Amino acid sequence: MTDQPITSPVQPRAADEPGQPTPSPELDELYRGFEKELLVPLWTEIGDLMPAHPRSKAMPYLWRWSDLLPLARRAGDLVPVGRGGERRAIALANPSLGGRPFVSPTLWAAIQYLMPGEDAPEHRHTQHAFRFVVEGEGVWTVVGRDPVAMRRGDFLPQAGWNWHAHHNATDEPMAWIDGLDIPFQYATESQFFEFGREEISDAEQITPARSRSERLWGHPGLRPVGVEHDDPGTPLLAYRWKHTDRALADQLELEAEGHAGTVEPGHAAVRFTHPGTGVDVLPTIRAEMHRIRSGAQTAPRREVGSSVYQVFDGSGTVTVGSETWSVTRGDLFVVPSWQPFSARSEAGHSDSDSGALDLFRFSDSPVFEALHAHRVHVEGQH
Amino acid sequence: MTDQPITSPVQPRAADEPGQPTPSPELDELYRGFEKELLVPLWTEIGDLMPAHPRSKAMPYLWRWSDLLPLARRAGDLVPVGRGGERRAIALANPSLGGRPFVSPTLWAAIQYLMPGEDAPEHRHTQHAFRFVVEGEGVWTVVGRDPVAMRRGDFLPQAGWNWHAHHNATDEPMAWIDGLDIPFQYATESQFFEFGREEISDAEQITPARSRSERLWGHPGLRPVGVEHDDPGTPLLAYRWKHTDRALADQLELEAEGHAGTVEPGHAAVRFTHPGTGVDVLPTIRAEMHRIRSGAQTAPRREVGSSVYQVFDGSGTVTVGSETWSVTRGDLFVVPSWQPFSARSEAGHSDSDSGALDLFRFSDSPVFEALHAHRVHVEGQH
Amino acid sequence: MTDQPITSPVQPRAADEPGQPTPSPELDELYRGFEKELLVPLWTEIGDLMPAHPRSKAMPYLWRWSDLLPLARRAGDLVPVGRGGERRAIALANPSLGGRPFVSPTLWAAIQYLMPGEDAPEHRHTQHAFRFVVEGEGVWTVVGRDPVAMRRGDFLPQAGWNWHAHHNATDEPMAWIDGLDIPFQYATESQFFEFGREEISDAEQITPARSRSERLWGHPGLRPVGVEHDDPGTPLLAYRWKHTDRALADQLELEAEGHAGTVEPGHAAVRFTHPGTGVDVLPTIRAEMHRIRSGAQTAPRREVGSSVYQVFDGSGTVTVGSETWSVTRGDLFVVPSWQPFSARSEAGHSDSDSGALDLFRFSDSPVFEALHAHRVHVEGQH
Amino acid sequence: MTDQPITSPVQPRAADEPGQPTPSPELDELYRGFEKELLVPLWTEIGDLMPAHPRSKAMPYLWRWSDLLPLARRAGDLVPVGRGGERRAIALANPSLGGRPFVSPTLWAAIQYLMPGEDAPEHRHTQHAFRFVVEGEGVWTVVGRDPVAMRRGDFLPQAGWNWHAHHNATDEPMAWIDGLDIPFQYATESQFFEFGREEISDAEQITPARSRSERLWGHPGLRPVGVEHDDPGTPLLAYRWKHTDRALADQLELEAEGHAGTVEPGHAAVRFTHPGTGVDVLPTIRAEMHRIRSGAQTAPRREVGSSVYQVFDGSGTVTVGSETWSVTRGDLFVVPSWQPFSARSEAGHSDSDSGALDLFRFSDSPVFEALHAHRVHVEGQH
Repeated sequence: MTDQPITSPVQPRAADEPGQPTPSPELDELYRGFEKELLVPLWTEIGDLMPAHPRSKAMPYLWRWSDLLPLARRAGDLVPVGRGGERRAIALANPSLGGRPFVSPTLWAAIQYLMPGEDAPEHRHTQHAFRFVVEGEGVWTVVGRDPVAMRRGDFLPQAGWNWHAHHNATDEPMAWIDGLDIPFQYATESQFFEFGREEISDAEQITPARSRSERLWGHPGLRPVGVEHDDPGTPLLAYRWKHTDRALADQLELEAEGHAGTVEPGHAAVRFTHPGTGVDVLPTIRAEMHRIRSGAQTAPRREVGSSVYQVFDGSGTVTVGSETWSVTRGDLFVVPSWQPFSARSEAGHSDSDSGALDLFRFSDSPVFEALHAHRVHVEGQH
Repeated sequence: MTDQPITSPVQPRAADEPGQPTPSPELDELYRGFEKELLVPLWTEIGDLMPAHPRSKAMPYLWRWSDLLPLARRAGDLVPVGRGGERRAIALANPSLGGRPFVSPTLWAAIQYLMPGEDAPEHRHTQHAFRFVVEGEGVWTVVGRDPVAMRRGDFLPQAGWNWHAHHNATDEPMAWIDGLDIPFQYATESQFFEFGREEISDAEQITPARSRSERLWGHPGLRPVGVEHDDPGTPLLAYRWKHTDRALADQLELEAEGHAGTVEPGHAAVRFTHPGTGVDVLPTIRAEMHRIRSGAQTAPRREVGSSVYQVFDGSGTVTVGSETWSVTRGDLFVVPSWQPFSARSEAGHSDSDSGALDLFRFSDSPVFEALHAHRVHVEGQH
Repeated sequence: MTDQPITSPVQPRAADEPGQPTPSPELDELYRGFEKELLVPLWTEIGDLMPAHPRSKAMPYLWRWSDLLPLARRAGDLVPVGRGGERRAIALANPSLGGRPFVSPTLWAAIQYLMPGEDAPEHRHTQHAFRFVVEGEGVWTVVGRDPVAMRRGDFLPQAGWNWHAHHNATDEPMAWIDGLDIPFQYATESQFFEFGREEISDAEQITPARSRSERLWGHPGLRPVGVEHDDPGTPLLAYRWKHTDRALADQLELEAEGHAGTVEPGHAAVRFTHPGTGVDVLPTIRAEMHRIRSGAQTAPRREVGSSVYQVFDGSGTVTVGSETWSVTRGDLFVVPSWQPFSARSEAGHSDSDSGALDLFRFSDSPVFEALHAHRVHVEGQH
Repeated sequence: MTDQPITSPVQPRAADEPGQPTPSPELDELYRGFEKELLVPLWTEIGDLMPAHPRSKAMPYLWRWSDLLPLARRAGDLVPVGRGGERRAIALANPSLGGRPFVSPTLWAAIQYLMPGEDAPEHRHTQHAFRFVVEGEGVWTVVGRDPVAMRRGDFLPQAGWNWHAHHNATDEPMAWIDGLDIPFQYATESQFFEFGREEISDAEQITPARSRSERLWGHPGLRPVGVEHDDPGTPLLAYRWKHTDRALADQLELEAEGHAGTVEPGHAAVRFTHPGTGVDVLPTIRAEMHRIRSGAQTAPRREVGSSVYQVFDGSGTVTVGSETWSVTRGDLFVVPSWQPFSARSEAGHSDSDSGALDLFRFSDSPVFEALHAHRVHVEGQH
């Protein structure tokens, strides 16, 4: 916050723009009066403020996993993990958002890195968060004293205001990505944060294969009768790859058998949801896994709000607005609001048996759906 | 949007801050690597991004009606109303928000002015809007071809994506305030806008005392059976002062008789709601009228999100954070997120018979309630 | 509850009915086995249990106000009002429902009568209730210690589990109708009941023109900010005739001006709703007022569930299934589930200025809507 | 429906009962007047209609699987399955409900039996239904052309208005239980029914191990993105025993480790839910599986509405109101509204390894929850 009020120099538009006043000394004087009283006219600003459709301040951009991972490793050598810094997390900064660590105006995406034996201290915050693991294993996230193993392909959500810490129980470092709604809460000024215990107890240093959350909530269509769950965030703390993989495979098989199930030909997708309500896994963040069959291509799609994708497996070509990139495992890219996005799987270049392109996606869609402001346009549909 | 990626110079923190790495040439090199790859570490930014509680970029600020109105009148002389500029609206610009026309990070407040016989052209936009009339009458807002009269004390909401125009059918100019969620939709990049007809028809130039919306939806607890209404925004386009005034008077009388009804002693309040659902009148904006009995004072209250107040009647003293102002009819002020607010009515200085202070308020609370992020703290309560 | 199990004699169907077994001694023996073990086969009962569409056990029936009122008056002479009997209420008993006091399988309708100076004692029950006043005034219903005046045309709902009593503060007797969901709660076995205080206090013997509930909740679109209301039943305890009448008149005027608003030509209707949520005024009962313009006729309409109508004003002809009756003020009739209903207003025979037919209606529709079982068919519509 | 109105003989109460009128010739005459006009006074009926708490017309009752199964087999010999009779289903008839095939006032429970190679014809109805398999396998239920295998322990729901048929693809007969809301829809008169195709196609005679519904919806917390599902009933057509069993085992293990998860000590339970919304699997029927650890006993529990239990595995003692029975695999019993229920597992008498008692339960609780009328009382709790 500044101590001194900033005056607002009114930027006159050209007089031949529609609806603009004729320049004159009197108009100049009026504009000076506006500045003095901290006022700005709508008629000079309306084009930027109220466009015909969203024109994002963010730009499409791609970060290569092969560039990120070495920097994260180097940070592992040089930067401690402890109270104050809280996490060895390095955020993607959209180049047209003024150098802030925001991948889009509403979303945060970072690579986090934890060295063997390290603990990231316990804290909680209103920002909603998740981890997604593109490679490696060995770290447990302890959420509300429930240790949750992290392994390749796992999606691990954590609704706001839950205590959480990480510990690396192995002798290998591990990297993963964090997604949060930090920019959204920053823009709307709704953040709270608290430090937790300095040490997590020995009892929580156990490293069970399944978290308690999965044992209670990880059975399809089955709700534990004896457990209250009033929190809007999901009580299921891990969505395991084996389930996600099978669900995607099932959809493509159903399609091959002539049945409904996929989003469009060759394009399977599942959404991670709160098992007690069926809604998005976090109040402000949607998370999905998409599988594009070898050789298939998705229809260009525009959506209100922004998305971040990480290539989980396979390789292919993605197009965001006017940008097209070849992508492979671990690469991350951002789709700004209302920019068209499509992806194509490239047979033969994939590491996987199937040749499919697996894309992890997260977005801010639940914000717009909750406020009745969501819109989608898919090319070729009405 | 910029054409060139902006590099993000990482700002190291002092090495003696908790959790910060030791300065070294290697660390410098790491930070240069971050900048090159468009990355920003969390550990240098966490204090600003994830504060213990909201610390608004906005500051408390007061605009005097006696300063605003002459400037609006002068704009009436110099600035046309027509397609392109769309409206003769002059926005309050919070002095610590970088000169943008935002009264808070999420809210827009403006004075609008229409000369005798003028028409403001028809358009629609996803931004949710309302009008509130602190003085005068004579303008009709035509919403979806339904002309709605505007008079002192009336609150006139207009949910996003409704066609609307204004026309001044009298030979007097008229001023009022507009409230919108322009900054919120700007930050989240969800805006759509369309021009409407160039001229509103003669049939809509009629100036009925009651709009069709009021005839259908303005009866307490009575819903028209033959009318569908699936829109999330309110179908009632005018909340008339006589009803608001009576509801506030009733609450204070109930309190005087020993019954519940007020918010706290001497403080009555009503919220404008969608008559078909009972929820806030607009999906992103809450609007209320508060009446503080002569001599009464409200308890300091903090709330996630920001509010704007306009003094409708009476006079008194208001405190926002560390600022205290004497206020009178028409004055506008902003309460940033989590800043404590209280008000005191000043007997004897009021224009009204009762000596009460009437405050119109609007806020972004529905956003936070929809996303389960709302928090309120009232001094003296738990 | 009976002490002795009742055996269930299986009723064989004719062998030539589709799907029926061939009669034989073995089949007889099987059926005796079913009876012994308290079993009943589906194949003999399916026609009654699972019809192609609802075939109500209730029949269309009409009760004349001119027959009811004298009996109620006579009960006023002979039957005390007090603890045990609780209310001087006389229920309509649908003639095909076995002599039980049920106007339909789910609804209760009764005429209640209170003599000058009498008090009906306080109690509460889970059954949802309302009063509707076709003539007279002078009784106050005290709901949760809030005295609510009853006058011609007023609708007074009372959600389950609210304490309530009646007192007649005048020197005239008064009659009105009660509607409850007694048969529904009887069939589903969900009733609770408690006696209240033996005497209502002097402080509640006041007879204010407006109840506290109306002063808090009776302003269109305005919600009191300081009052919590978590109860599913409405906090507004009186819906006054002047509002209902005006809303109906407004709809017919809008129609005359060429605008939407009525249900169908010449047919205006309003639904009584919870002002805090917009849903039906009681969780199991819908209540509406319909006005049919002189000479107009409604389209035959079938609906899942049953309705009861009382003529509030005017006269006309109503058709329920194969029955057609001429009706006038105070007459009550029942429309069983899925029976077609239509009404016609008769110009010139009405007491009212307008010649319109005003019909008060209540039904069990909210039960079916809550359970996704509601269906409506209007002749001439899809 | 009867053709002749039935008069309603008013049953006077004893004059010394509270609130009853003094017998007199005039009172007799009044009562005759009531009968003539098809009226019934509240004051003579209130005790039955408005009890202090639910007093069910149904009685606690037990049906032995060892009695039911032979009768079902015999029906297999004697009764055809085909259009008209529709299903070889034999319903439990509560002995105090007048011989009707209703296990409780709202619920239907039947044993259904299908011979080798038989087809039960396709139809649909608004009644919500499920199958539960206590023993055997070999039948497929074809729901909306999706064949769903039925095996021991599987729960197979079918929301109203879905087309469905059964076919037995093996050379063994098979029995299972059906649960429906037939009595509830009968009482409320909301039933619709349609015949389907006479033959199910060869393409549906396939007998896949997993239904298409499971392949789309049977993955924990994962929603298919490409599939709309607006129906209130569950899209998941089979809840397999292996998942149910594991969820129950997990709860008891968590308890043994000192963590929350069970309903009460030694009592695990899961509820079958709609995977897209988390609510009860059918709009009017709740279904759950309970496991009581060997030697454990549940606290007596009263609930508004009725439940039916079937012993799935193990043996034990159950108490319903004043009845106590020893029960074993397949036995069925009913718990009427507000009757206390508790169960005890008997170690050493069980067929299962664990000695636990597994109880399948279904109830009408969703009806009461939807209407805000649900109440539960557990002994020893507030």
